[in-house]
Amino acid sequence: MKKELIQTPRGVRDLVGIDAQLHEYLIDKFRKISMLNGFKPINTPVIEFFKLFEVKSGEEIKKSMYVFKDKAGRLLALRPEITASIVRAYLKHMQGWTKPIRLYYVGQCFRYEEPQRGRYREFWQAGLEIIGDKNINADISAAYTASKYLEEIGIKHYYLVGNVAIYRAIMSKYNLPVEEQDHVLHLIDKKIIDEALHYLKQKNEELYEIIEKLLQTPLNKLEDFLEQYREIFGEKYEQLKEEVNKLIIFINNLKEIGFNTIYDPSLVRGLAYYTGLIFEYKAAKGLDISIGGGGRYDGLTEIYGGTYEYSTGLALGLDRIMLVMKEINYNPPKPISALIIILGNTPITIGYKIQERLSSIGISSWVFTTNKLRKALSIANKENMDFAIIIGEKEYREEKLSIKDLQAKEQITINNKLLEEKLLDLLLK
Amino acid sequence: MKKELIQTPRGVRDLVGIDAQLHEYLIDKFRKISMLNGFKPINTPVIEFFKLFEVKSGEEIKKSMYVFKDKAGRLLALRPEITASIVRAYLKHMQGWTKPIRLYYVGQCFRYEEPQRGRYREFWQAGLEIIGDKNINADISAAYTASKYLEEIGIKHYYLVGNVAIYRAIMSKYNLPVEEQDHVLHLIDKKIIDEALHYLKQKNEELYEIIEKLLQTPLNKLEDFLEQYREIFGEKYEQLKEEVNKLIIFINNLKEIGFNTIYDPSLVRGLAYYTGLIFEYKAAKGLDISIGGGGRYDGLTEIYGGTYEYSTGLALGLDRIMLVMKEINYNPPKPISALIIILGNTPITIGYKIQERLSSIGISSWVFTTNKLRKALSIANKENMDFAIIIGEKEYREEKLSIKDLQAKEQITINNKLLEEKLLDLLLK
Repeated sequence: MKKELIQTPRGVRDLVGIDAQLHEYLIDKFRKISMLNGFKPINTPVIEFFKLFEVKSGEEIKKSMYVFKDKAGRLLALRPEITASIVRAYLKHMQGWTKPIRLYYVGQCFRYEEPQRGRYREFWQAGLEIIGDKNINADISAAYTASKYLEEIGIKHYYLVGNVAIYRAIMSKYNLPVEEQDHVLHLIDKKIIDEALHYLKQKNEELYEIIEKLLQTPLNKLEDFLEQYREIFGEKYEQLKEEVNKLIIFINNLKEIGFNTIYDPSLVRGLAYYTGLIFEYKAAKGLDISIGGGGRYDGLTEIYGGTYEYSTGLALGLDRIMLVMKEINYNPPKPISALIIILGNTPITIGYKIQERLSSIGISSWVFTTNKLRKALSIANKENMDFAIIIGEKEYREEKLSIKDLQAKEQITINNKLLEEKLLDLLLK
Repeated sequence: MKKELIQTPRGVRDLVGIDAQLHEYLIDKFRKISMLNGFKPINTPVIEFFKLFEVKSGEEIKKSMYVFKDKAGRLLALRPEITASIVRAYLKHMQGWTKPIRLYYVGQCFRYEEPQRGRYREFWQAGLEIIGDKNINADISAAYTASKYLEEIGIKHYYLVGNVAIYRAIMSKYNLPVEEQDHVLHLIDKKIIDEALHYLKQKNEELYEIIEKLLQTPLNKLEDFLEQYREIFGEKYEQLKEEVNKLIIFINNLKEIGFNTIYDPSLVRGLAYYTGLIFEYKAAKGLDISIGGGGRYDGLTEIYGGTYEYSTGLALGLDRIMLVMKEINYNPPKPISALIIILGNTPITIGYKIQERLSSIGISSWVFTTNKLRKALSIANKENMDFAIIIGEKEYREEKLSIKDLQAKEQITINNKLLEEKLLDLLLK
């Protein structure tokens, strides 16, 4: 066999069988839950101009992009994430729309990274974005919807919550340029906290002490922390108080609704566009892995050339979620199914009429024409179907059909007209 | 504004608003109808090795592919169509499965062609494939399912049906090499029939006459046509008779089921892997355009290095279908919707409890917190919502809420517990 022809490129994969069903189930549920919670669909292209992501995606993502030139020499990229595309689409199409604009999406993203368990070069993200709402309730609304989704598909999870605006405000107070702030946050994100602190110590001893303190302060002591350094923070104090307050409102409300939220002072997320409260979802059962996250990205619209807009959003990693679901042995719901066996010279159109009737009562079926009943039944059994509907020439002449219950191994012959009624009887038995 | 940052590359596009809803509706329905008609999902990657498509996609597609190298120098491509990937995935994962294997897929494909109405460089295909079934019933089964789908979404359509096996058998009889056969079929596909005939005439006068005759022979005269040249066809006669018979069975059965099928001797489809009966779907209302097609590709598994398998399939162009649906002014179904307005210091968690209750009865809603009732109502009205659910501090204390029917412009205040009951009353009024 020409082995090389049947391979997928490294890090991308086929979803077949139960994996494909699970994948589709995850997408369908996400769309349904998003719609019920007041989000509307958007679909942006897989191919974008490279510069869209160059601006604000963060060091690591930029390095791991699939970049190529089109025939006119323009630099294109396969999207490494979807938020930048949503902001671009907002600027292109939606600036005049009633705000807040609440959007959901599902799509593939591409990063040229070393593949590992649950990490692929083509991976699926499902996300929510709210543009034009400053209120912390917008963050809660997105987070609530994602949690409802995870709950619906049976994923126990908890939140880690942080706020990069607090770090940025304090570092700005000490005049640390944005690029250096990015570097410090990047180190904290990578959990190389000693190195981050060392870097700060070299810049300013006092700044170092404050950030070290902040990293050790629990949520209920954050207000005391602000008071302690109130004079130093000066005109930044009010902003810091507001950001701490957002943390408290976000965490407490989601807790009261019933979701497990934990303040993590060292939480910083990889994407460079976050400006405020951020959070990450962790699976609490099956596997202890990150399954998504999000946060505020106020003003990203402005960086892309539009007017300043408040924005928040999140994305869930569907491949990671699938991994967790497989770990807890979850199987997607399976429809009731039947094989319609048309024997001998019976016209196949009779089979398609039955297929239409079964379809209308939600039973999945297809027509198989053969002279070999045993072969047909063997297919139905191997496919783990519920029923075989058998019509031979005699049944056809007498307007009858046989139903074989493949689970109970019982067979009855009935008038063709009674099919639905009898099947429902058998299903309710 | 940085105009270049908000542009999509030429030929790719955002789907927003009603377009995004329609797109999603088309995909959801396709999945549902495919599942009900006994197909199972498969999902293959957007990125494949270039050589997968190089083998058998046909001249034009090969020229219009997005091709690029990965960092290890391997030649990759964005898939220009999905059947080749399905066959590859079959060889990789499914050779041991019970046959026939019935698969459906929905996904983006990419061709670097000049964009025009309904033709994009990133476009969406929804397809069905049946592997391991020689019987013409397999072709009928796939075609039936696609027609049921088109019927369900309100697309009136008809079929053009042809059979490339007839051309190939006749040309083989005259020892025309496969590449020359491909060339002739390509010319016929492009409707440059004179040129195709001229080419044949130069090769062999008799072959030219037979093909010219074939191109003018209607379905009910095909058997006579075979008889007329029976001696010339010799050992090919039986095969030709069988292929004509498949045409007749396919066309007559679909007609009897209720679909409009027309034999078109000049129908040849662009993909080089077709080996037998082929068909094309045309919209019959709104716009007279091709919206999909398919046919037999027996033995493609062998070309990719596996054992010979019978296979048939089809693909629908979702962008073309969307164009037709917009032409007939079809709007996708819209859920009942409500804005939950939380006023003043009322706890927002009360709003999320209501959101959960509305969600459970299928009403789409979200929580908006404000001090300005008028602003909130204006949002709900602009978004064309059905209801506003209003809870101020007084209502909250008294365990009440107000429902404003935004269509009837009426408002009532009720006990919080009676919400679902009252909404259903209002909806049934």
